[in-house]
This record gives sequence, C-alpha cells and structure tokens, in this order.
Amino acid sequence: MRLSRYFLPILREAPKEAEIVSHRLMLRAGMIRQEAAGIYAWLPLGLRVLNKIADIVREEQNRAGAVELLMPTLQLADLWRESGRYDAYGEEMLRIKDRHEREMLYGPTNEEMITEIFRAGVRSYKDLPKNLYHIQWKFRDERRPRFGVMRSREFLMKDAYSFDLDAEGARTSYNRMFVAYLRTFARLGLKAIPMRADTGPIGGDLSHEFIILAKTGESEVFCHKNFLDFDTPPASVDFDDPAALQAIVDRWTSLYAATEDMHDAGAFEALAADDRLSARGIEVGHIFYFGTKYSVPMKAFVTGPDGRDTPVHMGSYGIGPSRLAAAIIEAGHDDAGIIWPDAVAPFRVGLVNLKPGDAAVDAACEDLYAKLTGQGIDVLYDDTDERAGSKFATMELIGLPWRLVVGPKGLAAGTVELKRRAGGAAEQLSPESALAAIIG
Amino acid sequence: MRLSRYFLPILREAPKEAEIVSHRLMLRAGMIRQEAAGIYAWLPLGLRVLNKIADIVREEQNRAGAVELLMPTLQLADLWRESGRYDAYGEEMLRIKDRHEREMLYGPTNEEMITEIFRAGVRSYKDLPKNLYHIQWKFRDERRPRFGVMRSREFLMKDAYSFDLDAEGARTSYNRMFVAYLRTFARLGLKAIPMRADTGPIGGDLSHEFIILAKTGESEVFCHKNFLDFDTPPASVDFDDPAALQAIVDRWTSLYAATEDMHDAGAFEALAADDRLSARGIEVGHIFYFGTKYSVPMKAFVTGPDGRDTPVHMGSYGIGPSRLAAAIIEAGHDDAGIIWPDAVAPFRVGLVNLKPGDAAVDAACEDLYAKLTGQGIDVLYDDTDERAGSKFATMELIGLPWRLVVGPKGLAAGTVELKRRAGGAAEQLSPESALAAIIG
Repeated sequence: MRLSRYFLPILREAPKEAEIVSHRLMLRAGMIRQEAAGIYAWLPLGLRVLNKIADIVREEQNRAGAVELLMPTLQLADLWRESGRYDAYGEEMLRIKDRHEREMLYGPTNEEMITEIFRAGVRSYKDLPKNLYHIQWKFRDERRPRFGVMRSREFLMKDAYSFDLDAEGARTSYNRMFVAYLRTFARLGLKAIPMRADTGPIGGDLSHEFIILAKTGESEVFCHKNFLDFDTPPASVDFDDPAALQAIVDRWTSLYAATEDMHDAGAFEALAADDRLSARGIEVGHIFYFGTKYSVPMKAFVTGPDGRDTPVHMGSYGIGPSRLAAAIIEAGHDDAGIIWPDAVAPFRVGLVNLKPGDAAVDAACEDLYAKLTGQGIDVLYDDTDERAGSKFATMELIGLPWRLVVGPKGLAAGTVELKRRAGGAAEQLSPESALAAIIG
Repeated sequence: MRLSRYFLPILREAPKEAEIVSHRLMLRAGMIRQEAAGIYAWLPLGLRVLNKIADIVREEQNRAGAVELLMPTLQLADLWRESGRYDAYGEEMLRIKDRHEREMLYGPTNEEMITEIFRAGVRSYKDLPKNLYHIQWKFRDERRPRFGVMRSREFLMKDAYSFDLDAEGARTSYNRMFVAYLRTFARLGLKAIPMRADTGPIGGDLSHEFIILAKTGESEVFCHKNFLDFDTPPASVDFDDPAALQAIVDRWTSLYAATEDMHDAGAFEALAADDRLSARGIEVGHIFYFGTKYSVPMKAFVTGPDGRDTPVHMGSYGIGPSRLAAAIIEAGHDDAGIIWPDAVAPFRVGLVNLKPGDAAVDAACEDLYAKLTGQGIDVLYDDTDERAGSKFATMELIGLPWRLVVGPKGLAAGTVELKRRAGGAAEQLSPESALAAIIG
C-alpha cells in the first residue's frame, strides 16, 4: 500500500482524553476514531490489526472443531425472557423498540440465541458434541466507557458455545477451548495465564479467565512464576483425545493463579517467596461451563441413547478481538510508539523513500516494493513528500516489524537501511540482503 | 468439513412463510434462520457464501483503489442533525436511546459518519482523491420486511465513499466504482446491467443501479438486449486512467436501459423489436454522485491549490452482500435446489460416502478428502449414516458445484461417480480421473 493513497490520520500530540498507553497510541497512530462514548470506528490501519487478530482466533477455533456461523446484532426481548435474563441483565443491556413497538435489544452475548438455534436444528445425542461460534459486534452499555477499545460499548467478540450430552462430554468441550485459547494467545505474541474465575452473570460452576501480564493492567493478579516458562500446546494436539486435552489443562491449572476476586492470600503466601509473582493483569479471554442453566428453561433437549429427552450441557467461550488489539499494545510498546508482534502487524514492512522524485531512489523503492509484495508480504510504502524526521517518527509510532529506508546517499554506496522495530541497530545492506533478511 | 461434525439443519419441507424461491431454498438448505422479522442468523453454510461474496466485493474495491475501514453500527443522532437527515429519514431509521438518554441510531448508511472521519483526517487537496469503504451490518426498519435476506432489516452492506476536489475528479471516482461493480458482479456469476436511477434519499444528480435479470425479480426493467453480450472489463483495467474508465462507462451506458421508475416507453419502443428486452430485475448495487450535498453542511473542506478552503465532491457506492446471496440463488436454481457458481459455492465438492463403516469405502473417501483439501479445495464430506437418497437430495439442495460419490459397488470396479451440479450426466471414473477433473 502506498501511503499517498492510504488513509492514515496520524496525530502528533497525545489526545488528552486517553488515560492509558494503548488508547493514546491507537488514536495517535490513526488506528481508531471515537464516534461516540465507547463507540469507535476502526480506521484502515486498525482494521488490518483487528482482522489479523480475528483470523488467528478463527483458525484456532476451527482447529479445535468449532464451527463458525454469524448471529445478528439485534435480538428479541422475548428470547431473553425464556432464560429469565431479560429483567436480570440490568442497564448494560441496550434495549430498543422498533417501529412496531416490539421490544428488542442489541446483543451483549448470545447464550439465548444460540440455544434457540441449537434446539431447532439438533434432536439426537448422535449429533453431539457441537461447538458453534461467531465473531460479531456486541454492545454493553457501560456506565462509564473508557480506555478506548479496552472497555468500549460496541466491541467485537468471538463467542463460542458448546453442546454436550452430559457433564463429562462438556468438560472435554471446555478443555478443547482451554487449549485453543492457550494456542490463540501464544500466536498473538501474548503470554496468557489461565486463572480460576468467578462466573458472574453468565452463571455456571467452572470458569477460567485468561490473563496477560502488563504493567498497565486493570487489576492485580497472583500466580506461580513457573507459568512464564510453560510451553504452548503444539498445533498437533489431538482435539479428539479427551485424555490428552485433560493432561494439558491439568498442567496449566496445577499451580497457583488467581485474580483479585478469587485470591487466597494464604495459599499464595505458602509458595516459596521466589515463586510468587504478583503483577497487573488484563483479561483477554473467559470460558464458562454452565451445565443446563439455559437448556432446561429453554428446552434444548436431545434424545439420549436411552430414548429419553435430556437437556444438553453447555459452555460458552469468549475472546474480544477489539480489546486484544489494545492489550497487545499494552504488552508491546516503547516511548516512540507501538511494537507489533509479527503475527498481527498491520504491515510487515515500512518502506521509506527519503527522496521522492529522485529517479534512482524511486526506482529502487518500486523494485523493493514489487519484490516484497510479490512474496505476499504486506508493505506500507511511504512515497509522500514529508520530511525524513516525520517519516521516521510515523514508522516508529505505527510499529511495523521492519523499517526499510532508501535514500540517495546509501543508494550511491549500493545500500539501503534495515531496522527491526523490536530492537537492534539499523544495518546498511545491499537491497538483496535486506530482502533476504525480511523474507527469511 | 465432515458433515457429522458440521451444523447443517436441512428442512425437508418448504417453509410456508417463504414467498420467493431464494428464501425457500436458503431456509431449506440450512443457510439462514430467522431470529426476528427481517433479522436472520447466518448458519455455517450461509456464512461461507456470504464471506465469499464479501471477499470478491473487497478484492474489486481494493483493485479500484478504495481503502477499507470499519465504522461502528451505532451512530449519534447529532451527527445526522448536521446533514439535516435525522428528521428527514423517517421510520426506517431505528432510533435508540442509551442509558444516559443520549439519542442514537443504528446506521442505515454512513454518509454522515464517513464525512466526519474524512474532515478530521484530510486537510489538503494533495491527499485527494480518496475512497473509503467498509463492509458492515446496517439496519433499516422496513415496515414489512419479507423475501428473507432479499429485503431484511439487518443486512450487510459494502458502502464506499469517494472524496474529490471537484466534479471532474468525482466523475472519475464514480467511474472507478462503476467499472469495479461490473467486475464484481461478473465474478459472482451474474450478468448485471447498469441502469440510470433515481437518487432517492441519498440525494445527488447522477446515479446508476446495477440490475440482474431474474424471473422472480422485484420490478420490471427495460433494456437493449445487446447488454447480454457485453464483455466484462478485464482485471488489467488501469484505474488511474480516467479516459480508459470513461470509455468503459460510455460503452455500458450507450444503450437503452431503465428501471420502471425511469422508463421512457417512447425511447424503448424506438428500438428495433428484436433489440428490446423487458424482464424482471433485482437491484444488486447502487452508485451515487452527490457533489457537495454533505460536505457543505458538514464543513468537509480541503485547502485547494489556490490556498482556499473548498468543499469536497462526494459519491457513495453500495452493494449488499447479504442480498446478493439471495439474488445469486434467484438467478441459479432448479427444482431440486440451489446451483452455486463456483466463485461463491460454500464448498467446491460434496463427497458422499454411500456406506460408512465399510473399510474400503471409508478409506477411499478419506483418501479423496485428504487429497482435495490438500489442494486447498473446500470439501463437505457426508460421512453420516443417512440413507443414500437423503444424502443425494441434500447435495442437490445445497448445490455444490461437484458431487463425488463413493460406494462399494463402484469401488469394486475401481470407480467413483462424479457429477456437475450445473448439469451433465454422472460419470463413472477412476478416483484419479475424478480428482483431476475437479482440480482441473
């Protein structure tokens, strides 16, 4: 993408309303723009990140056997009356009346709707287990939205819902998502630690939050420091092997880990002092097993092996890709701007032309641009007339993994300059060597 | 995808509420489910089609130089007061109050919001032209939603917005989208004819609808029959060449074509009788040039070459991927079900195992499944215990381009059966020949 044709409204000054670094950087880097309190437009650079996050989430959901569908944003109030949550949900639910005065709502979550879809389409235990998910915009009318997309009102959520004949099967479905989440966060460049959690308004009796550690985290968390060295489950995990899944979950729940809400100071103090890690954390995923909480009132029954109707056991599993974009920045930035992990960077390479209009520099840039994009590598090519200092500042701010600079002086000596955003010195290399370093 | 693990709730009976064939078939094929009047969930099979349509739309938008972002679904009423449309829009606008009684709405279109984003980010004519688009859910509170996703209330729309310094530049931007639309519909397997259109509530003075011909179309259209033989502009069109774009547009607007609203019976009757084509049509795209209608009241000004602030000239360009899914079915089906064009088929191949549990048949199916998916071909593998007749009916109904059947009898003779959904006899081939025919 040529910057001259792109839409990248960089802000040189930190906006006053932004309290946390991810919010400041997302606004400054032209990733998002606030359209109302807690409601954001994702500008082109931000959308690229959001889509890359969602794609990784999707790949790991699919790998774990979940099937994607897409439910609408608006729902009928009557559906929520079936579960009893319409009155219980409180002011965070955005209630809407249509032109015929029908009571509707903007979905804050989808347990009721997916249960309705399931009960209409599945009748026999032979069709179980099922896990259905979607990635869709949700709305929760937070009283005080803040921290940008970290706590917004309209937000993107991946929510998966599992359906099993019994608690044992449901436990395996839960474990599948537990393992998928470990893989998802690792691929996003995050170290996420599963922590036993309160089930809150979703209900149920088994729940984990996945927490990443970041200085600017929203709450205090406590865990055994060995979590930091745990290996991520490999892509080859057999999601059809309940014992293999349970072994991974057992290992990842074998050590102390708790959020403030669930913290047991005594148990934590019982750890060796060296093993105690207390830090700030950001919740990036939340999984729940809640048994028949929805299937009983909503009559989501299947015919069991004994021929009798039996309510299905359910779980739900949420990840917020929009919140993750901010969390990844909280975990990776410096004073100059964002430092994207390769997997979610909006472009892999920032190509800087130091002298547009200089025939040799233009030609070298065009050649590098063509060769990189020809390899399927996303390049943001700064072909504008801005000063060099401003171009460098923009590249530092938006945090692309590689910065490749072409200027007349270097070019006369047969070199271009290559630098990793994540650290390391700028190197003067031949264009061929620079390409080889990037393409790897 | 193994059918045993998928979620494909087929209906054997045609639902009574469905008045048109696409609605009937989408419900029967388990593509969609109604969650409220005019509000649908896209079940896994439907979502695959919707995503393929959206991907083609996106590719052609990008090719034409448009840049993708994503605006939120909810908007502030005050933004629409700036343009004067808040009061003008009428009952189709879903008006919402949040917990703080702020007036909001579910976006039916985004002229106001994109103008707000543009004016905050672009200041100079040097940054023009710009074309920004998004693919997002919209809501229009139709009094009487019907025809399934063909006229739903919550629907997916690609809406692009162009910004130019003057009318001449805006005309080129309009032409870019005109050409991109011709390419988009052709890639979707549709013959779309651009017809001069009324501008309606969007406003402006130049507008075309893109209409596909289908027996079940919503309205009467009239055009010269030579349109049917026009070539689609190639992928190599130079979108930076205004003259080349204008030549394509001139050709595609050189012959008579009009919807009922704009029909001029005299001009139509003046055509040779053999050249007259009157048919039913479905609108699948709509493009508008409306000059400074929004930029003046909303103060979307850029500094011109003369140093003076000048309001930008705008256009907007809509395609509804959710409506297109239905339109494609209206244009391609038979008594047995849907006939998908290859480009948007949810899976390319339906692989039918006639005797699950038979070791040889299972092994042959697994081998074909692995080889096809290994080539990046989407396969729906029916590995269930259903009767053969039911399996065949399902495959006809869901309309995948290729049906590949493996049974014990054929296999003993070294053959499998391959059939194109679009027509042609079933052929008995060696597995290798069948693969070669599909992979092509």
